Amino acid sequence: MTRIRLGMVGGGAGAFIGGVHRIASRIDDRYELVAGAFSSTPEKSKASGAELGVAEARCYGDYAQMAKREARLKDGIEAVAIVTPNHVHFPAAREFLKRGIHVICDKPLTSTLSDAKKMVTAVEKSNALFVLTHNYTGYPMVRQAREMVASGRLGKIRVVQVEYPQDWLTEAAENEGLKQAEWRTDPERSGAGGCVGDIGTHAYNLASFVAGLEVESLAADLHTFVEGRRLDDNVHVMMRYAGGARGMLWSSQVAPGNENGLRLRVYGEKGGLDWAQEDPNYLWFTSFGHPTQKLTRGGAGVTETTGTRIPPGHPEGYLEGFANLYSQAADLIVAHRDGHTPDHLLPTVHDGLKGVRFIDACVRSSRKNAAWVDL
Amino acid sequence: MTRIRLGMVGGGAGAFIGGVHRIASRIDDRYELVAGAFSSTPEKSKASGAELGVAEARCYGDYAQMAKREARLKDGIEAVAIVTPNHVHFPAAREFLKRGIHVICDKPLTSTLSDAKKMVTAVEKSNALFVLTHNYTGYPMVRQAREMVASGRLGKIRVVQVEYPQDWLTEAAENEGLKQAEWRTDPERSGAGGCVGDIGTHAYNLASFVAGLEVESLAADLHTFVEGRRLDDNVHVMMRYAGGARGMLWSSQVAPGNENGLRLRVYGEKGGLDWAQEDPNYLWFTSFGHPTQKLTRGGAGVTETTGTRIPPGHPEGYLEGFANLYSQAADLIVAHRDGHTPDHLLPTVHDGLKGVRFIDACVRSSRKNAAWVDL
Amino acid sequence: MTRIRLGMVGGGAGAFIGGVHRIASRIDDRYELVAGAFSSTPEKSKASGAELGVAEARCYGDYAQMAKREARLKDGIEAVAIVTPNHVHFPAAREFLKRGIHVICDKPLTSTLSDAKKMVTAVEKSNALFVLTHNYTGYPMVRQAREMVASGRLGKIRVVQVEYPQDWLTEAAENEGLKQAEWRTDPERSGAGGCVGDIGTHAYNLASFVAGLEVESLAADLHTFVEGRRLDDNVHVMMRYAGGARGMLWSSQVAPGNENGLRLRVYGEKGGLDWAQEDPNYLWFTSFGHPTQKLTRGGAGVTETTGTRIPPGHPEGYLEGFANLYSQAADLIVAHRDGHTPDHLLPTVHDGLKGVRFIDACVRSSRKNAAWVDL
Amino acid sequence: MTRIRLGMVGGGAGAFIGGVHRIASRIDDRYELVAGAFSSTPEKSKASGAELGVAEARCYGDYAQMAKREARLKDGIEAVAIVTPNHVHFPAAREFLKRGIHVICDKPLTSTLSDAKKMVTAVEKSNALFVLTHNYTGYPMVRQAREMVASGRLGKIRVVQVEYPQDWLTEAAENEGLKQAEWRTDPERSGAGGCVGDIGTHAYNLASFVAGLEVESLAADLHTFVEGRRLDDNVHVMMRYAGGARGMLWSSQVAPGNENGLRLRVYGEKGGLDWAQEDPNYLWFTSFGHPTQKLTRGGAGVTETTGTRIPPGHPEGYLEGFANLYSQAADLIVAHRDGHTPDHLLPTVHDGLKGVRFIDACVRSSRKNAAWVDL
Repeated sequence: MTRIRLGMVGGGAGAFIGGVHRIASRIDDRYELVAGAFSSTPEKSKASGAELGVAEARCYGDYAQMAKREARLKDGIEAVAIVTPNHVHFPAAREFLKRGIHVICDKPLTSTLSDAKKMVTAVEKSNALFVLTHNYTGYPMVRQAREMVASGRLGKIRVVQVEYPQDWLTEAAENEGLKQAEWRTDPERSGAGGCVGDIGTHAYNLASFVAGLEVESLAADLHTFVEGRRLDDNVHVMMRYAGGARGMLWSSQVAPGNENGLRLRVYGEKGGLDWAQEDPNYLWFTSFGHPTQKLTRGGAGVTETTGTRIPPGHPEGYLEGFANLYSQAADLIVAHRDGHTPDHLLPTVHDGLKGVRFIDACVRSSRKNAAWVDL
Repeated sequence: MTRIRLGMVGGGAGAFIGGVHRIASRIDDRYELVAGAFSSTPEKSKASGAELGVAEARCYGDYAQMAKREARLKDGIEAVAIVTPNHVHFPAAREFLKRGIHVICDKPLTSTLSDAKKMVTAVEKSNALFVLTHNYTGYPMVRQAREMVASGRLGKIRVVQVEYPQDWLTEAAENEGLKQAEWRTDPERSGAGGCVGDIGTHAYNLASFVAGLEVESLAADLHTFVEGRRLDDNVHVMMRYAGGARGMLWSSQVAPGNENGLRLRVYGEKGGLDWAQEDPNYLWFTSFGHPTQKLTRGGAGVTETTGTRIPPGHPEGYLEGFANLYSQAADLIVAHRDGHTPDHLLPTVHDGLKGVRFIDACVRSSRKNAAWVDL
Repeated sequence: MTRIRLGMVGGGAGAFIGGVHRIASRIDDRYELVAGAFSSTPEKSKASGAELGVAEARCYGDYAQMAKREARLKDGIEAVAIVTPNHVHFPAAREFLKRGIHVICDKPLTSTLSDAKKMVTAVEKSNALFVLTHNYTGYPMVRQAREMVASGRLGKIRVVQVEYPQDWLTEAAENEGLKQAEWRTDPERSGAGGCVGDIGTHAYNLASFVAGLEVESLAADLHTFVEGRRLDDNVHVMMRYAGGARGMLWSSQVAPGNENGLRLRVYGEKGGLDWAQEDPNYLWFTSFGHPTQKLTRGGAGVTETTGTRIPPGHPEGYLEGFANLYSQAADLIVAHRDGHTPDHLLPTVHDGLKGVRFIDACVRSSRKNAAWVDL
Repeated sequence: MTRIRLGMVGGGAGAFIGGVHRIASRIDDRYELVAGAFSSTPEKSKASGAELGVAEARCYGDYAQMAKREARLKDGIEAVAIVTPNHVHFPAAREFLKRGIHVICDKPLTSTLSDAKKMVTAVEKSNALFVLTHNYTGYPMVRQAREMVASGRLGKIRVVQVEYPQDWLTEAAENEGLKQAEWRTDPERSGAGGCVGDIGTHAYNLASFVAGLEVESLAADLHTFVEGRRLDDNVHVMMRYAGGARGMLWSSQVAPGNENGLRLRVYGEKGGLDWAQEDPNYLWFTSFGHPTQKLTRGGAGVTETTGTRIPPGHPEGYLEGFANLYSQAADLIVAHRDGHTPDHLLPTVHDGLKGVRFIDACVRSSRKNAAWVDL
């Protein structure tokens, strides 16, 4: 097994989605990050690269230069992840596509429709692959939902309800120096859509992915509630799908109490499905006239095999909890090199001894008909 | 940033927890797996190593040999993960500890109390670190819970209820060739405790970790429901903690409908906490006389910072969904090398174009007072 | 305390909502049902009356006759409940209103806008009271929600999301002889709205009641999915409220897996609320920047006192469970009159003895340091 | 239909459970309350009777006198509800049983084992019926659970987990003048069990009712956490059932965040069940190897017909919400008699008009292709 050599455009210090892409690339050990134009100056880019373990020579201040040079290297990158604000997606992707370097690009595709059409052309002309990270389509139970619709378990689809409320822009966070808020509310960097581009597209994409249907027409009521904000922060849409289904989409960034409330419900002539991203391991399925079933990742009645790194009965998120121990152990090991042993919460050999004493005490007590025993 | 050189004992083909350890070690990119005694023969070990990208020369058939040789190498491993059945933990750990190699060991510590005591001695004699992967203590909201108890938010603790039901051993899976079931129900490899050792210790450890209390005495009723099974598959325990708190522990592997139902509730004079592992991002807190609060990882009122790779509003599990896209993209890239483009469900540039068309249509419709527009 | 003398129009054999009105009138023992035009013929009306314990002389085949005669009786009805299909609401109510008899009328008010306006006039001319049973406004936590909005806890309201999905009309139940489905899908009896009139109005009313806002304009996409059905069975509406709030309303009777899924979410500049009718004792409140709170009927932080028949800690629905025992005991008593003792599941004195033995055994065991004792 | 003439012992001003019994008796209109010894003096009893609409002549200060006189009356009571503190159950019941008057008695049966045995004898000697209100067995989904166990859907039962946590006695409420707390913590009135008698018996009874099993032996750890309290406030019990099943019971009145958390889980060789009283309309059923099903009162796959006053799709609790409107309307009617019209929140004819306008606007908009229309 050899890892794919990966580069990255964007994702320097202070970014959010770049780090997510990097972790995602490492989880199954299929990629090796070897180059990057992490920031807009060579200095910042090199600083980020140093933290990420990327050789200085392959940290660029400019994606065009990076594309040019990497394409010429014998062991240059085979794929690039583009994780910049939306308006950079197209010009960056173009440079790599024309050199045959595969592109993994964050969503939405571009900040303008004109750029989007050019992107399609660029991909069609290129020999390279292009993948857009509408990441919610990667959840195992979303795949399961899609498969159930496709195989006719719901019958002809009638109604599609999708929503994606958040609350983090309830106040004018873009005026408080929050970088994530700044570019998302800036038409120059985000395009004409604010909330609709940032999360509405996720909801739209997810609904189409699962329902297997295309929107033909829509009526949208975009609104900006926070004074002075330059893009919409609440989105109400009614949709009509090819084939006759009707849908509604609500996305909002001003709905207090909602963190990342993406939820999809699909109803057909024979049944219904309900999935919520904050509880992603479960899919609720009702065959009309029968009790609702709780389907679980890798569990009974589930055919989808994507993402079954851990067997049935271990929720996703388990891996991150495990990783916390490993990473804190790494901190400890690094401190140990310097002769330090900082305070920590990692389980020790003494905790282990207690655990074995517990087993021993349980067995002893049980053998004495559950009499009380000391540990 | 340099990665810590990591070895592994166990975790060859067909194993479960070894893979989990490897993913956990990669998530934050702090380790590099460079050696292993993955299986009990050199051939099998090398085969596993090849799949994992470990150099053949550093794949061993024997942990003792591995410890000896790695300790002599200039760039030998700094740490080893031991992910074997329980009875191997101690003899393997001893080899590495005595050579100053840090040990990250799966739980329970050992299969016998005698070995556990020897392990403590071995750790105390060694200069190396020892970490036991009671992984549930790594969840951010478990850490938050512990902190809230420690800081007195619950007052003096009175009642601790912990449970860990599963259903995968409802039938005699150990007779059906399921490797995971075989060793867990075998006293030679697991020790005197079955369900109590496998998951009861997790529950016990978690309760003590959060409540900050030690069990002084207990009364246990272990029982085996499946005919012919050699170890307990259901565990009922009443516990008395130092300081006067009382507790109950239930763990079971024969409770249909339960996947991995670890749940902890802690009650004190001033308040109560409730956390469930299948919904790990939430912690329910009640200050007596006030409404119950839903605390979320990284959210309002939460001070714990462990595991905040992704900002408030993105559930754990999100990373795995993202990783699914990356890994399926890797499959596509590998196929592309050979001139193939297999069918796939990854979002394409056309999906991206549709998304941008959606944004554009929303903006157009909204500007026309939400009139219907075609996409 | 004297009970109010109540009459009823509609609610004969086979009806649903009439029985609900009767139970509701009895729960607090404030009414006595003494007259009725339960069905459209005197015979059927008398048969229903006999079952309901209403004197034969006061069972009418005609609401007009009933109004006339009851108004003349010395102990005639003081109030009448109108629980007929929609198109009868106005002509029936008119008869009682003009005679000074209070009217409690089921929703929607009428089947046509013209009748609705006439109803307003009739009420304004009358000295009698008129109450419309938008019953969802009677839930304690709905009242609590309204109070919280009114007192400014949410700040200025921005977004109102209300939905009311059901699934009972997924297939053409109106062709299968289901009376409830027949009149609800018949424009003559329901008016121009099907699902929108039946449950959409409930959702609309609830949203306005809680948010304290009036809809100024709306855009609605009504659709009929079941072939041959004469009225809408799915309703999508975007709404604009006076003062600038925006809202969405979805109601459906073809959404498999939904029983009676009325849910309301209200978001303002300072906070948000979430309430679902299938879990009516809870109200979720988020003050922006603070953890979400679970408010419970009669619980901490709740000021609303409506409906606190049972103290904090006893869910609504408890009373019906209790009533089941009472009513089954009544069956037993009636059978006993005739010398029969049918099989039953009611708890007996022997169950009571077992319970006391249980307490006794617990006390005995606990006094012996939790030793096992026989019951 | 004639109502059963009912008397009541206990249930005067300030009582809780007496009011519950009265409402329960009215819901299906099967009883008429005609006599009572509501309090321990004739004056108080008459005052309560006046509020309840019971004739003064039939309000007694003494249950013995009541039993004697009612037995002689031509239209004397046929049944009596005993809703006093526990120690009065037996002496009161005896008086009615020996005169052939049916007894409906609150739980636990008595405050001492000796009284319990005498109660059994008294019932056996009497021709009258005796019903104990273990009211949780009256929930439709509890009945459904019992039926599923009895019919073998779960196979042979192995594990029974029942719990009933509350938090209202977390502090010493009995010293703050709370009547409910006073007698429940007083051994004279409650017997030797505190929490175990008050709610532990409910949990015990429910578990046996559903599982169809008898406890043979138990080990109990009762504890009192609140200083100065005279009876247990936390109960830990391990149980062994006839036939080999094992169980645990936890009840507590000092667990902050728990209102009335009765929950039962039953596991057998073939499947499992999970029911929680705070969400009583749902029953979770897992047939081992199949997805978990959500069964709902009156819904698909449910055979139990108890308590189906309202059709599938209307949760219990709905009736109380409805009753709130009726009872507030009664207030309004009473005020109206005196020429007052107090402020109120009841839906008016104007709300009704708005609802019809809403329907009309939806229909108009929809006919114009969902154009915006004013209301």
